[in-house]
Amino acid sequence: MVILGVDPGLHYCGYAIIQKEGNKATLLNYGYLSLSPSKTVASRLSEIHSFFGDSISKYNITHISFETPFLGKNAQNFLKLGYVRGILYLLAHNHGLIITEFSPREIKQSLTGYGAAGKDQVARVILALFPRMEKPKKEDVTDALAVTLCGLWKHSKSQNC
Amino acid sequence: MVILGVDPGLHYCGYAIIQKEGNKATLLNYGYLSLSPSKTVASRLSEIHSFFGDSISKYNITHISFETPFLGKNAQNFLKLGYVRGILYLLAHNHGLIITEFSPREIKQSLTGYGAAGKDQVARVILALFPRMEKPKKEDVTDALAVTLCGLWKHSKSQNC
Repeated sequence: MVILGVDPGLHYCGYAIIQKEGNKATLLNYGYLSLSPSKTVASRLSEIHSFFGDSISKYNITHISFETPFLGKNAQNFLKLGYVRGILYLLAHNHGLIITEFSPREIKQSLTGYGAAGKDQVARVILALFPRMEKPKKEDVTDALAVTLCGLWKHSKSQNC
Repeated sequence: MVILGVDPGLHYCGYAIIQKEGNKATLLNYGYLSLSPSKTVASRLSEIHSFFGDSISKYNITHISFETPFLGKNAQNFLKLGYVRGILYLLAHNHGLIITEFSPREIKQSLTGYGAAGKDQVARVILALFPRMEKPKKEDVTDALAVTLCGLWKHSKSQNC
């Protein structure tokens, strides 16, 4: 099982890739795709499609995991999140990936034991779990790592997420 | 200029394709893609991607036109519309299409002269403009024809939409 977790966005798109073999989990890659706001939405979506399409092939990804969005104050941002999710669904289908989605509350609950935890609390747990990892510069990366771990745990059945 | 207009949806996806040569506009194709609600969202998005990708190549489409969505009562439907729009943006970018978007009000105003017109009024104008066309079974088709005409008029500069 190789799982890709994504924190979708049209400006920064965080991601993490974890491989599970037996009881051993290896963090293969993590980071964020930075998309210039000066480019069109269509061009950025195409970049996201190419980048994750290449990653899926390169790492032989079998599972994908992402957060279910909620409608915040800005309906346009919610819609844009929909664009990115549409691209991820398309990639998942075309590469035969198993999709798992988690609510923000489920992710926080699973990582910290507290469903209303702050982003910094989630980040601290992530850093404790990966002690050799440098602190990511962007919350998008820790968010992506969190949702990847939830996917991993769900499929490993070692912990509910 | 060959323009594709789409009324996006995850159940019915209306479309129309109009070719413009000089002063002559020809309706090349119109209809709707019917997507089974029993299939996964990912699978339906992949169907939409394949169908419109094939249509773009088959008809040498150069322009794409669609409606800007507004947030209605159902945030989940709004998000799903985002998925389909994400796919259309991706296709537009990858095939080098010129994108034009219109608000529902602009479309109604342009077709009927009245921005708050009902769907039936828009349909009547469409049928008057294409007298040899049979009345489409779905409003998704007349909506797609309306947004295609708006795109055509905008680029032809013969009428504001």
